[in-house]
Amino acid sequence: MTERDYETAVNTDEVAANEAPATAKAQTVPVVAVVLAAGFGTRFDPDNPKQLVSVGGKPIVCWSIEAFERCARVSDIVVVVNSKVREEVESLIDQQGYGKVRVVIDGGAERVDSTAAALDMLAAAGIPGNAKILIHDAVRPFVAQQAIDGSIDALDQFKAATVAYASTDTVLLTRDLGDLKVVKSVPDRPNTFRAQTPQSFRFATIRQAYDLASADPDFHPTDDTRVVVDYLPDVPVAIVSGAETNMKITTLEDIPTAERIAEQLEGFDPKEAARARMHALLAQAAGQMR
Amino acid sequence: MTERDYETAVNTDEVAANEAPATAKAQTVPVVAVVLAAGFGTRFDPDNPKQLVSVGGKPIVCWSIEAFERCARVSDIVVVVNSKVREEVESLIDQQGYGKVRVVIDGGAERVDSTAAALDMLAAAGIPGNAKILIHDAVRPFVAQQAIDGSIDALDQFKAATVAYASTDTVLLTRDLGDLKVVKSVPDRPNTFRAQTPQSFRFATIRQAYDLASADPDFHPTDDTRVVVDYLPDVPVAIVSGAETNMKITTLEDIPTAERIAEQLEGFDPKEAARARMHALLAQAAGQMR
Repeated sequence: MTERDYETAVNTDEVAANEAPATAKAQTVPVVAVVLAAGFGTRFDPDNPKQLVSVGGKPIVCWSIEAFERCARVSDIVVVVNSKVREEVESLIDQQGYGKVRVVIDGGAERVDSTAAALDMLAAAGIPGNAKILIHDAVRPFVAQQAIDGSIDALDQFKAATVAYASTDTVLLTRDLGDLKVVKSVPDRPNTFRAQTPQSFRFATIRQAYDLASADPDFHPTDDTRVVVDYLPDVPVAIVSGAETNMKITTLEDIPTAERIAEQLEGFDPKEAARARMHALLAQAAGQMR
Repeated sequence: MTERDYETAVNTDEVAANEAPATAKAQTVPVVAVVLAAGFGTRFDPDNPKQLVSVGGKPIVCWSIEAFERCARVSDIVVVVNSKVREEVESLIDQQGYGKVRVVIDGGAERVDSTAAALDMLAAAGIPGNAKILIHDAVRPFVAQQAIDGSIDALDQFKAATVAYASTDTVLLTRDLGDLKVVKSVPDRPNTFRAQTPQSFRFATIRQAYDLASADPDFHPTDDTRVVVDYLPDVPVAIVSGAETNMKITTLEDIPTAERIAEQLEGFDPKEAARARMHALLAQAAGQMR
Protein backbone atom coordinates (compact mmCIF):
# COMPACT_ATOMS: atom_id res chain seq x y z
CA MET A 1 0.00 0.00 0.00
CA THR A 2 1.25 3.47 -0.81
CA GLU A 3 0.92 6.50 1.39
CA ARG A 4 -1.91 7.60 -0.89
CA ASP A 5 -3.83 4.35 -0.39
CA TYR A 6 -3.40 4.89 3.28
CA GLU A 7 -5.10 8.27 3.05
CA THR A 8 -8.17 6.51 1.76
CA ALA A 9 -7.75 3.46 3.97
CA VAL A 10 -7.19 5.19 7.29
CA ASN A 11 -8.34 8.63 8.19
CA THR A 12 -5.63 10.87 9.65
CA ASP A 13 -7.39 14.19 9.72
CA GLU A 14 -9.27 15.71 12.60
CA VAL A 15 -12.79 14.96 11.51
CA ALA A 16 -13.25 12.64 14.43
CA ALA A 17 -12.03 15.26 16.86
CA ASN A 18 -14.45 17.78 15.40
CA GLU A 19 -17.31 15.39 15.88
CA ALA A 20 -16.35 14.86 19.50
CA PRO A 21 -18.14 16.67 22.30
CA ALA A 22 -16.70 20.07 23.13
CA THR A 23 -15.26 18.75 26.38
CA ALA A 24 -13.04 16.23 24.58
CA LYS A 25 -9.45 17.16 23.91
CA ALA A 26 -8.52 17.96 20.32
CA GLN A 27 -7.37 14.69 18.85
CA THR A 28 -4.51 14.82 16.41
CA VAL A 29 -3.67 11.16 15.94
CA PRO A 30 -5.74 8.47 14.26
CA VAL A 31 -7.64 6.24 16.64
CA VAL A 32 -8.07 2.91 14.89
CA ALA A 33 -10.31 0.14 16.18
CA VAL A 34 -9.26 -3.32 15.01
CA VAL A 35 -12.26 -5.64 15.37
CA LEU A 36 -11.10 -9.26 15.37
CA ALA A 37 -13.84 -11.47 13.93
CA ALA A 38 -11.66 -14.25 12.55
CA GLY A 39 -11.98 -16.88 15.27
CA PHE A 40 -13.97 -20.04 14.68
CA GLY A 41 -15.00 -21.13 18.13
CA THR A 42 -14.63 -24.88 18.25
CA ARG A 43 -17.01 -24.82 21.19
CA PHE A 44 -19.68 -23.19 19.04
CA ASP A 45 -22.06 -24.27 16.31
CA PRO A 46 -19.71 -24.89 13.34
CA ASP A 47 -22.47 -24.08 10.82
CA ASN A 48 -23.13 -20.72 12.35
CA PRO A 49 -19.95 -18.92 13.39
CA LYS A 50 -20.41 -17.12 16.66
CA GLN A 51 -19.64 -13.66 15.26
CA LEU A 52 -22.70 -13.94 13.03
CA VAL A 53 -25.14 -15.24 15.63
CA SER A 54 -27.81 -12.69 16.48
CA VAL A 55 -28.35 -11.48 20.00
CA GLY A 56 -30.96 -8.82 20.71
CA GLY A 57 -31.92 -9.04 17.05
CA LYS A 58 -28.47 -8.10 15.73
CA PRO A 59 -25.42 -10.15 14.67
CA ILE A 60 -22.71 -10.13 17.32
CA VAL A 61 -20.15 -8.61 14.94
CA CYS A 62 -22.50 -5.68 14.26
CA TRP A 63 -22.80 -4.89 17.96
CA SER A 64 -19.01 -4.73 18.16
CA ILE A 65 -18.54 -2.57 15.08
CA GLU A 66 -21.32 -0.22 16.20
CA ALA A 67 -19.65 0.33 19.57
CA PHE A 68 -16.73 1.96 17.74
CA GLU A 69 -18.92 3.63 15.11
CA ARG A 70 -20.76 5.33 17.97
CA CYS A 71 -17.61 6.66 19.67
CA ALA A 72 -16.81 9.98 17.96
CA ARG A 73 -13.14 9.75 18.96
CA VAL A 74 -12.58 6.58 16.94
CA SER A 75 -11.55 7.66 13.45
CA ASP A 76 -11.25 4.33 11.63
CA ILE A 77 -12.27 0.71 11.94
CA VAL A 78 -10.45 -2.31 10.51
CA VAL A 79 -12.36 -5.59 10.57
CA VAL A 80 -10.40 -8.85 10.53
CA VAL A 81 -12.33 -11.90 9.32
CA ASN A 82 -11.97 -15.53 8.47
CA SER A 83 -12.28 -15.95 4.70
CA LYS A 84 -15.30 -18.20 5.28
CA VAL A 85 -17.34 -15.34 6.73
CA ARG A 86 -15.88 -12.48 4.69
CA GLU A 87 -18.77 -12.28 2.27
CA GLU A 88 -21.42 -12.21 4.97
CA VAL A 89 -19.54 -9.69 7.12
CA GLU A 90 -18.96 -7.42 4.13
CA SER A 91 -22.60 -7.51 3.20
CA LEU A 92 -23.59 -6.69 6.79
CA ILE A 93 -21.21 -3.72 6.75
CA ASP A 94 -22.73 -2.48 3.49
CA GLN A 95 -26.30 -3.01 4.65
CA GLN A 96 -25.71 -1.15 7.87
CA GLY A 97 -23.67 1.59 6.21
CA TYR A 98 -20.89 1.61 8.80
CA GLY A 99 -19.03 4.73 7.72
CA LYS A 100 -15.75 4.19 9.59
CA VAL A 101 -14.95 0.70 8.35
CA ARG A 102 -12.06 1.31 5.96
CA VAL A 103 -11.11 -2.23 5.14
CA VAL A 104 -11.96 -5.88 5.83
CA ILE A 105 -8.88 -8.09 5.88
CA ASP A 106 -8.27 -11.81 6.29
CA GLY A 107 -6.99 -12.95 9.64
CA GLY A 108 -4.87 -15.96 10.47
CA ALA A 109 -5.14 -19.33 12.14
CA GLU A 110 -4.67 -17.98 15.66
CA ARG A 111 -5.69 -14.77 17.35
CA VAL A 112 -2.11 -13.54 17.30
CA ASP A 113 -1.95 -14.06 13.53
CA SER A 114 -5.03 -11.94 13.04
CA THR A 115 -3.59 -9.10 15.10
CA ALA A 116 -0.32 -9.41 13.18
CA ALA A 117 -2.21 -9.21 9.87
CA ALA A 118 -3.92 -6.01 11.00
CA LEU A 119 -0.64 -4.48 12.19
CA ASP A 120 1.05 -5.35 8.88
CA MET A 121 -1.78 -3.73 6.97
CA LEU A 122 -1.60 -0.59 9.11
CA ALA A 123 2.19 -0.43 8.72
CA ALA A 124 1.91 -0.83 4.97
CA ALA A 125 -0.67 1.94 5.02
CA GLY A 126 1.89 4.19 6.68
CA ILE A 127 0.03 4.82 9.90
CA PRO A 128 2.04 7.00 12.31
CA GLY A 129 3.78 5.39 15.28
CA ASN A 130 1.80 7.47 17.75
CA ALA A 131 -1.57 6.34 16.37
CA LYS A 132 -3.83 4.80 18.99
CA ILE A 133 -4.80 1.22 18.15
CA LEU A 134 -7.71 -0.41 19.98
CA ILE A 135 -7.81 -4.16 19.40
CA HIS A 136 -11.20 -5.66 20.19
CA ASP A 137 -12.64 -9.18 20.11
CA ALA A 138 -15.80 -9.14 18.01
CA VAL A 139 -17.30 -11.72 20.38
CA ARG A 140 -17.43 -9.08 23.13
CA PRO A 141 -20.40 -7.27 21.62
CA PHE A 142 -21.42 -5.16 24.61
CA VAL A 143 -18.30 -3.11 25.25
CA ALA A 144 -19.29 0.15 26.97
CA GLN A 145 -18.45 3.59 25.65
CA GLN A 146 -16.67 4.28 28.95
CA ALA A 147 -14.31 1.40 28.26
CA ILE A 148 -13.51 2.74 24.79
CA ASP A 149 -13.10 6.29 26.07
CA GLY A 150 -11.03 5.05 28.99
CA SER A 151 -8.75 3.16 26.63
CA ILE A 152 -8.19 6.21 24.41
CA ASP A 153 -7.52 8.37 27.47
CA ALA A 154 -5.14 5.86 29.03
CA LEU A 155 -2.90 6.06 25.96
CA ASP A 156 -2.17 9.73 26.77
CA GLN A 157 -0.33 8.54 29.85
CA PHE A 158 0.66 5.00 28.91
CA LYS A 159 1.84 3.29 25.74
CA ALA A 160 -0.42 0.32 26.41
CA ALA A 161 -3.67 -0.33 28.25
CA THR A 162 -6.21 -3.08 28.57
CA VAL A 163 -9.77 -3.19 29.64
CA ALA A 164 -10.06 -5.68 32.47
CA TYR A 165 -12.55 -6.67 35.10
CA ALA A 166 -11.64 -7.32 38.72
CA SER A 167 -11.98 -11.02 39.46
CA THR A 168 -14.70 -11.80 41.98
CA ASP A 169 -13.39 -15.34 42.33
CA THR A 170 -10.07 -16.10 43.94
CA VAL A 171 -7.62 -16.96 41.16
CA LEU A 172 -5.37 -20.02 41.53
CA LEU A 173 -2.13 -20.37 39.61
CA THR A 174 -1.32 -24.01 39.01
CA ARG A 175 1.55 -26.24 38.00
CA ASP A 176 1.57 -29.77 36.64
CA LEU A 177 2.25 -32.65 39.03
CA GLY A 178 2.32 -35.76 36.87
CA ASP A 179 -0.89 -35.58 34.89
CA LEU A 180 -2.64 -33.53 37.56
CA LYS A 181 -2.77 -29.84 38.28
CA VAL A 182 -1.88 -28.60 41.74
CA VAL A 183 -1.95 -25.08 43.12
CA LYS A 184 1.29 -23.17 42.80
CA SER A 185 0.20 -19.90 44.32
CA VAL A 186 -2.83 -17.83 45.19
CA PRO A 187 -2.33 -14.18 44.28
CA ASP A 188 -4.05 -11.42 46.28
CA ARG A 189 -7.52 -11.06 44.88
CA PRO A 190 -7.36 -7.23 44.47
CA ASN A 191 -4.46 -7.81 42.07
CA THR A 192 -6.24 -10.31 39.85
CA PHE A 193 -8.18 -9.17 36.81
CA ARG A 194 -9.88 -10.91 33.93
CA ALA A 195 -8.59 -9.47 30.69
CA GLN A 196 -11.23 -8.07 28.38
CA THR A 197 -10.95 -5.95 25.27
CA PRO A 198 -10.27 -3.48 23.77
CA GLN A 199 -6.57 -3.75 24.43
CA SER A 200 -4.99 -0.52 23.33
CA PHE A 201 -1.53 0.52 22.25
CA ARG A 202 0.40 3.27 20.59
CA PHE A 203 1.07 1.77 17.19
CA ALA A 204 4.89 1.81 17.48
CA THR A 205 4.68 -0.03 20.81
CA ILE A 206 2.49 -2.94 19.72
CA ARG A 207 4.41 -3.16 16.45
CA GLN A 208 7.73 -3.42 18.28
CA ALA A 209 6.37 -6.02 20.69
CA TYR A 210 5.06 -8.15 17.83
CA ASP A 211 8.36 -7.85 15.97
CA LEU A 212 10.21 -9.16 19.01
CA ALA A 213 7.64 -11.91 19.62
CA SER A 214 7.66 -13.11 16.02
CA ALA A 215 11.23 -14.33 16.53
CA ASP A 216 9.93 -16.83 19.10
CA PRO A 217 8.12 -19.75 17.43
CA ASP A 218 6.88 -21.10 20.78
CA PHE A 219 4.98 -17.98 21.65
CA HIS A 220 1.20 -18.29 21.32
CA PRO A 221 -0.30 -15.51 23.42
CA THR A 222 -4.04 -15.54 24.03
CA ASP A 223 -4.10 -11.77 24.19
CA ASP A 224 -2.16 -8.81 22.90
CA THR A 225 -1.36 -7.35 26.30
CA ARG A 226 0.84 -10.32 27.00
CA VAL A 227 2.96 -9.61 23.94
CA VAL A 228 3.85 -6.23 25.43
CA VAL A 229 4.22 -7.51 28.99
CA ASP A 230 6.57 -10.32 27.93
CA TYR A 231 8.61 -8.59 25.22
CA LEU A 232 8.62 -5.00 26.45
CA PRO A 233 8.69 -5.55 30.21
CA ASP A 234 9.56 -1.93 30.90
CA VAL A 235 6.36 -0.66 29.30
CA PRO A 236 3.61 -0.53 31.94
CA VAL A 237 0.18 -1.61 30.73
CA ALA A 238 -2.62 0.32 32.41
CA ILE A 239 -5.84 -1.30 33.56
CA VAL A 240 -9.02 0.37 32.25
CA SER A 241 -12.23 -0.53 34.09
CA GLY A 242 -14.28 -3.17 32.33
CA ALA A 243 -17.66 -4.57 33.26
CA GLU A 244 -19.32 -7.94 33.70
CA THR A 245 -21.52 -7.02 30.71
CA ASN A 246 -18.44 -6.85 28.45
CA MET A 247 -18.68 -10.62 28.25
CA LYS A 248 -17.04 -12.89 25.73
CA ILE A 249 -19.51 -15.11 23.89
CA THR A 250 -17.72 -18.44 23.74
CA THR A 251 -20.37 -21.15 23.79
CA LEU A 252 -24.07 -21.45 23.00
CA GLU A 253 -24.69 -21.43 26.75
CA ASP A 254 -23.57 -17.81 26.80
CA ILE A 255 -26.41 -16.71 24.53
CA PRO A 256 -29.21 -16.39 27.14
CA THR A 257 -26.98 -14.16 29.30
CA ALA A 258 -26.08 -12.17 26.21
CA GLU A 259 -29.76 -11.74 25.30
CA ARG A 260 -30.44 -10.41 28.77
CA ILE A 261 -27.62 -7.89 28.52
CA ALA A 262 -28.69 -6.84 25.00
CA GLU A 263 -32.16 -5.96 26.21
CA GLN A 264 -30.74 -3.31 28.51
CA LEU A 265 -28.63 -1.59 25.87
CA GLU A 266 -28.96 1.19 23.36
CA GLY A 267 -29.23 -0.37 19.93
CA PHE A 268 -31.49 -3.20 21.09
CA ASP A 269 -34.20 -3.84 18.51
CA PRO A 270 -37.20 -5.49 20.21
CA LYS A 271 -38.93 -6.30 16.91
CA GLU A 272 -35.87 -7.95 15.41
CA ALA A 273 -35.19 -9.73 18.69
CA ALA A 274 -38.72 -11.14 18.77
CA ARG A 275 -38.39 -12.23 15.14
CA ALA A 276 -35.04 -13.93 15.89
CA ARG A 277 -36.48 -15.70 18.92
CA MET A 278 -39.43 -16.94 16.86
CA HIS A 279 -36.96 -18.13 14.23
CA ALA A 280 -34.93 -20.03 16.83
CA LEU A 281 -38.06 -21.64 18.28
CA LEU A 282 -39.25 -22.74 14.83
CA ALA A 283 -35.83 -24.17 14.04
CA GLN A 284 -35.89 -26.03 17.37
CA ALA A 285 -39.40 -27.35 16.71
CA ALA A 286 -38.41 -28.43 13.18
CA GLY A 287 -35.41 -30.24 14.67
CA GLN A 288 -37.64 -32.04 17.18
CA MET A 289 -40.05 -33.13 14.46
CA ARG A 290 -37.28 -34.71 12.41
CA MET B 1 -17.44 -30.45 74.28
CA THR B 2 -16.66 -33.88 75.60
CA GLU B 3 -15.90 -36.96 73.57
CA ARG B 4 -19.44 -38.07 74.26
CA ASP B 5 -20.92 -34.85 72.89
CA TYR B 6 -18.85 -35.41 69.83
CA GLU B 7 -20.44 -38.80 69.31
CA THR B 8 -23.76 -37.07 69.01
CA ALA B 9 -22.40 -34.04 67.19
CA VAL B 10 -20.35 -35.81 64.55
CA ASN B 11 -20.90 -39.29 63.29
CA THR B 12 -17.76 -41.45 63.26
CA ASP B 13 -19.21 -44.83 62.49
CA GLU B 14 -19.59 -46.38 59.09
CA VAL B 15 -23.23 -45.72 58.46
CA ALA B 16 -22.38 -43.37 55.64
CA ALA B 17 -20.16 -45.98 54.03
CA ASN B 18 -22.92 -48.53 54.31
CA GLU B 19 -25.30 -46.18 52.56
CA ALA B 20 -22.85 -45.63 49.73
CA PRO B 21 -23.20 -47.47 46.44
CA ALA B 22 -21.49 -50.85 46.35
CA THR B 23 -18.82 -49.48 44.04
CA ALA B 24 -17.64 -46.92 46.59
CA LYS B 25 -14.67 -47.82 48.76
CA ALA B 26 -15.38 -48.61 52.41
CA GLN B 27 -15.05 -45.34 54.22
CA THR B 28 -13.58 -45.40 57.67
CA VAL B 29 -13.09 -41.73 58.41
CA PRO B 30 -15.75 -39.09 58.94
CA VAL B 31 -16.42 -36.90 55.93
CA VAL B 32 -17.67 -33.59 57.28
CA ALA B 33 -19.15 -30.88 55.10
CA VAL B 34 -18.83 -27.39 56.58
CA VAL B 35 -21.39 -25.14 54.90
CA LEU B 36 -20.44 -21.49 55.39
CA ALA B 37 -23.58 -19.38 55.43
CA ALA B 38 -22.34 -16.53 57.62
CA GLY B 39 -21.46 -13.89 55.04
CA PHE B 40 -23.57 -10.78 54.62
CA GLY B 41 -23.00 -9.72 51.06
CA THR B 42 -22.66 -5.95 51.10
CA ARG B 43 -23.48 -6.07 47.39
CA PHE B 44 -26.79 -7.78 48.12
CA ASP B 45 -30.16 -6.78 49.47
CA PRO B 46 -29.44 -6.11 53.18
CA ASP B 47 -33.01 -6.99 54.18
CA ASN B 48 -32.83 -10.36 52.54
CA PRO B 49 -29.46 -12.07 53.08
CA LYS B 50 -28.37 -13.89 49.96
CA GLN B 51 -28.23 -17.31 51.59
CA LEU B 52 -31.98 -17.11 52.21
CA VAL B 53 -33.01 -15.86 48.78
CA SER B 54 -34.95 -18.47 46.83
CA VAL B 55 -33.82 -19.69 43.46
CA GLY B 56 -35.76 -22.39 41.66
CA GLY B 57 -38.27 -22.22 44.50
CA LYS B 58 -35.76 -23.09 47.23
CA PRO B 59 -33.57 -20.97 49.55
CA ILE B 60 -29.96 -20.89 48.41
CA VAL B 61 -28.71 -22.36 51.70
CA CYS B 62 -31.04 -25.35 51.27
CA TRP B 63 -29.62 -26.15 47.83
CA SER B 64 -26.14 -26.21 49.36
CA ILE B 65 -27.07 -28.36 52.34
CA GLU B 66 -28.98 -30.79 50.12
CA ALA B 67 -25.95 -31.28 47.86
CA PHE B 68 -24.15 -32.83 50.82
CA GLU B 69 -27.24 -34.57 52.21
CA ARG B 70 -27.55 -36.32 48.85
CA CYS B 71 -23.94 -37.57 48.77
CA ALA B 72 -23.93 -40.86 50.68
CA ARG B 73 -20.22 -40.55 51.45
CA VAL B 74 -20.70 -37.36 53.47
CA SER B 75 -21.31 -38.42 57.06
CA ASP B 76 -21.93 -35.09 58.78
CA ILE B 77 -22.80 -31.50 58.00
CA VAL B 78 -21.89 -28.44 60.08
CA VAL B 79 -23.66 -25.21 59.14
CA VAL B 80 -22.00 -21.91 60.03
CA VAL B 81 -24.34 -18.91 60.22
CA ASN B 82 -24.48 -15.29 61.13
CA SER B 83 -26.47 -14.89 64.33
CA LYS B 84 -28.95 -12.70 62.43
CA VAL B 85 -30.07 -15.60 60.26
CA ARG B 86 -29.62 -18.43 62.75
CA GLU B 87 -33.28 -18.71 63.62
CA GLU B 88 -34.39 -18.84 60.00
CA VAL B 89 -31.70 -21.31 58.95
CA GLU B 90 -32.48 -23.58 61.91
CA SER B 91 -36.15 -23.57 61.09
CA LEU B 92 -35.38 -24.40 57.43
CA ILE B 93 -33.22 -27.33 58.57
CA ASP B 94 -36.02 -28.58 60.82
CA GLN B 95 -38.69 -28.16 58.15
CA GLN B 96 -36.67 -29.99 55.55
CA GLY B 97 -35.54 -32.67 57.99
CA TYR B 98 -31.89 -32.62 56.94
CA GLY B 99 -30.63 -35.70 58.77
CA LYS B 100 -26.90 -35.07 58.57
CA VAL B 101 -26.83 -31.58 60.00
CA ARG B 102 -25.29 -32.13 63.44
CA VAL B 103 -24.90 -28.56 64.57
CA VAL B 104 -25.44 -24.94 63.55
CA ILE B 105 -22.71 -22.65 64.87
CA ASP B 106 -22.06 -18.91 64.77
CA GLY B 107 -19.45 -17.71 62.32
CA GLY B 108 -17.26 -14.66 62.53
CA ALA B 109 -16.80 -11.29 60.90
CA GLU B 110 -14.78 -12.63 57.97
CA ARG B 111 -14.87 -15.85 56.02
CA VAL B 112 -11.65 -16.99 57.68
CA ASP B 113 -13.21 -16.48 61.12
CA SER B 114 -16.14 -18.69 60.18
CA THR B 115 -13.86 -21.48 59.03
CA ALA B 116 -11.81 -21.10 62.20
CA ALA B 117 -14.97 -21.36 64.30
CA ALA B 118 -15.92 -24.59 62.56
CA LEU B 119 -12.42 -26.04 63.00
CA ASP B 120 -12.42 -25.14 66.69
CA MET B 121 -15.76 -26.83 67.13
CA LEU B 122 -14.57 -29.97 65.36
CA ALA B 123 -11.36 -30.03 67.41
CA ALA B 124 -13.33 -29.65 70.63
CA ALA B 125 -15.54 -32.48 69.45
CA GLY B 126 -12.45 -34.68 69.14
CA ILE B 127 -12.67 -35.32 65.41
CA PRO B 128 -9.70 -37.44 64.19
CA GLY B 129 -6.86 -35.78 62.29
CA ASN B 130 -7.46 -37.90 59.22
CA ALA B 131 -11.12 -36.85 58.90
CA LYS B 132 -11.99 -35.35 55.54
CA ILE B 133 -13.32 -31.80 55.82
CA LEU B 134 -15.14 -30.24 52.87
CA ILE B 135 -15.57 -26.50 53.30
CA HIS B 136 -18.28 -25.07 51.08
CA ASP B 137 -19.69 -21.60 50.46
CA ALA B 138 -23.44 -21.73 50.91
CA VAL B 139 -23.79 -19.18 48.10
CA ARG B 140 -22.61 -21.81 45.61
CA PRO B 141 -25.89 -23.71 45.63
CA PHE B 142 -25.39 -25.82 42.51
CA VAL B 143 -22.28 -27.79 43.37
CA ALA B 144 -22.31 -31.06 41.41
CA GLN B 145 -22.07 -34.50 43.00
CA GLN B 146 -18.97 -35.13 40.86
CA ALA B 147 -17.25 -32.18 42.50
CA ILE B 148 -18.08 -33.51 45.98
CA ASP B 149 -17.04 -37.06 45.06
CA GLY B 150 -13.90 -35.76 43.36
CA SER B 151 -12.99 -33.82 46.50
CA ILE B 152 -13.42 -36.84 48.74
CA ASP B 153 -11.38 -39.00 46.34
CA ALA B 154 -8.61 -36.42 45.99
CA LEU B 155 -8.01 -36.58 49.75
CA ASP B 156 -6.90 -40.20 49.40
CA GLN B 157 -3.88 -38.97 47.45
CA PHE B 158 -3.51 -35.41 48.73
CA LYS B 159 -3.93 -33.67 52.06
CA ALA B 160 -5.71 -30.77 50.41
CA ALA B 161 -7.80 -30.19 47.30
CA THR B 162 -10.00 -27.50 45.85
CA VAL B 163 -12.70 -27.48 43.27
CA ALA B 164 -11.75 -24.97 40.60
CA TYR B 165 -12.81 -24.03 37.13
CA ALA B 166 -10.37 -23.35 34.31
CA SER B 167 -10.43 -19.66 33.45
CA THR B 168 -11.74 -18.94 29.98
CA ASP B 169 -10.50 -15.37 30.23
CA THR B 170 -6.83 -14.51 30.28
CA VAL B 171 -5.92 -13.59 33.86
CA LEU B 172 -3.85 -10.49 34.54
CA LEU B 173 -1.82 -10.07 37.71
CA THR B 174 -1.46 -6.41 38.60
CA ARG B 175 0.59 -4.11 40.79
CA ASP B 176 -0.08 -0.59 41.98
CA LEU B 177 1.53 2.31 40.15
CA GLY B 178 0.53 5.41 42.07
CA ASP B 179 -3.23 5.16 42.41
CA LEU B 180 -3.53 3.08 39.25
CA LYS B 181 -3.22 -0.63 38.56
CA VAL B 182 -0.84 -1.83 35.88
CA VAL B 183 -0.20 -5.33 34.64
CA LYS B 184 2.62 -7.16 36.40
CA SER B 185 2.41 -10.45 34.54
CA VAL B 186 0.15 -12.59 32.42
CA PRO B 187 0.27 -16.24 33.49
CA ASP B 188 -0.29 -19.02 30.93
CA ARG B 189 -4.01 -19.49 30.63
CA PRO B 190 -3.96 -23.30 31.09
CA ASN B 191 -2.47 -22.67 34.53
CA THR B 192 -5.12 -20.23 35.69
CA PHE B 193 -8.19 -21.42 37.56
CA ARG B 194 -11.04 -19.74 39.33
CA ALA B 195 -11.34 -21.16 42.82
CA GLN B 196 -14.68 -22.64 43.72
CA THR B 197 -15.77 -24.76 46.64
CA PRO B 198 -15.80 -27.22 48.31
CA GLN B 199 -12.20 -26.86 49.38
CA SER B 200 -11.19 -30.05 51.11
CA PHE B 201 -8.59 -31.01 53.64
CA ARG B 202 -7.55 -33.71 56.00
CA PHE B 203 -8.50 -32.21 59.35
CA ALA B 204 -4.96 -32.16 60.79
CA THR B 205 -3.70 -30.31 57.71
CA ILE B 206 -6.21 -27.46 57.69
CA ARG B 207 -5.98 -27.20 61.47
CA GLN B 208 -2.20 -26.85 61.32
CA ALA B 209 -2.39 -24.28 58.53
CA TYR B 210 -4.89 -22.21 60.49
CA ASP B 211 -2.78 -22.42 63.64
CA LEU B 212 0.20 -21.06 61.74
CA ALA B 213 -1.88 -18.37 60.01
CA SER B 214 -3.52 -17.19 63.22
CA ALA B 215 -0.13 -15.88 64.38
CA ASP B 216 -0.18 -13.42 61.47
CA PRO B 217 -2.61 -10.55 62.13
CA ASP B 218 -2.26 -9.20 58.58
CA PHE B 219 -3.48 -12.37 56.97
CA HIS B 220 -7.01 -12.14 55.55
CA PRO B 221 -7.34 -14.96 53.02
CA THR B 222 -10.41 -15.02 50.78
CA ASP B 223 -10.30 -18.78 50.64
CA ASP B 224 -9.07 -21.71 52.69
CA THR B 225 -6.79 -23.12 50.03
CA ARG B 226 -4.60 -20.09 50.37
CA VAL B 227 -4.07 -20.77 54.07
CA VAL B 228 -2.52 -24.11 53.17
CA VAL B 229 -0.60 -22.82 50.14
CA ASP B 230 0.94 -19.96 52.12
CA TYR B 231 1.57 -21.65 55.47
CA LEU B 232 2.24 -25.24 54.43
CA PRO B 233 3.99 -24.65 51.09
CA ASP B 234 5.17 -28.26 50.90
CA VAL B 235 1.61 -29.59 50.88
CA PRO B 236 0.36 -29.79 47.30
CA VAL B 237 -3.28 -28.80 46.81
CA ALA B 238 -4.98 -30.79 44.05
CA ILE B 239 -7.38 -29.25 41.55
CA VAL B 240 -10.77 -30.99 41.33
CA SER B 241 -12.81 -30.17 38.22
CA GLY B 242 -15.51 -27.60 38.84
CA ALA B 243 -18.14 -26.28 36.49
CA GLU B 244 -19.49 -22.96 35.32
CA THR B 245 -22.77 -23.93 36.99
CA ASN B 246 -21.05 -24.04 40.40
CA MET B 247 -21.45 -20.28 40.44
CA LYS B 248 -21.18 -17.99 43.43
CA ILE B 249 -24.26 -15.83 43.94
CA THR B 250 -22.81 -12.46 44.85
CA THR B 251 -25.20 -9.82 43.58
CA LEU B 252 -28.87 -9.59 42.62
CA GLU B 253 -27.75 -9.63 38.99
CA ASP B 254 -26.63 -13.23 39.48
CA ILE B 255 -30.17 -14.39 40.25
CA PRO B 256 -31.48 -14.78 36.67
CA THR B 257 -28.47 -16.94 35.74
CA ALA B 258 -29.02 -18.93 38.93
CA GLU B 259 -32.68 -19.44 38.08
CA ARG B 260 -31.69 -20.78 34.67
CA ILE B 261 -29.23 -23.23 36.21
CA ALA B 262 -31.73 -24.31 38.87
CA GLU B 263 -34.28 -25.28 36.24
CA GLN B 264 -31.91 -27.89 34.85
CA LEU B 265 -31.18 -29.56 38.17
CA GLU B 266 -32.54 -32.35 40.28
CA GLY B 267 -34.35 -30.80 43.19
CA PHE B 268 -35.93 -28.05 41.14
CA ASP B 269 -39.51 -27.48 42.19
CA PRO B 270 -41.46 -25.92 39.31
CA LYS B 271 -44.52 -25.17 41.46
CA GLU B 272 -42.51 -23.44 44.17
CA ALA B 273 -40.49 -21.61 41.51
CA ALA B 274 -43.64 -20.32 39.83
CA ARG B 275 -45.00 -19.23 43.19
CA ALA B 276 -41.73 -17.42 44.02
CA ARG B 277 -41.71 -15.71 40.63
CA MET B 278 -45.31 -14.55 41.11
CA HIS B 279 -44.32 -13.26 44.55
CA ALA B 280 -41.41 -11.31 43.09
CA LEU B 281 -43.61 -9.82 40.37
CA LEU B 282 -46.25 -8.78 42.88
CA ALA B 283 -43.60 -7.20 45.10
CA GLN B 284 -42.23 -5.35 42.09
CA ALA B 285 -45.71 -4.16 41.08
CA ALA B 286 -46.43 -3.05 44.64
CA GLY B 287 -43.16 -1.13 44.60
CA GLN B 288 -44.14 0.61 41.37
CA MET B 289 -47.55 1.59 42.71
CA ARG B 290 -46.07 3.23 45.78
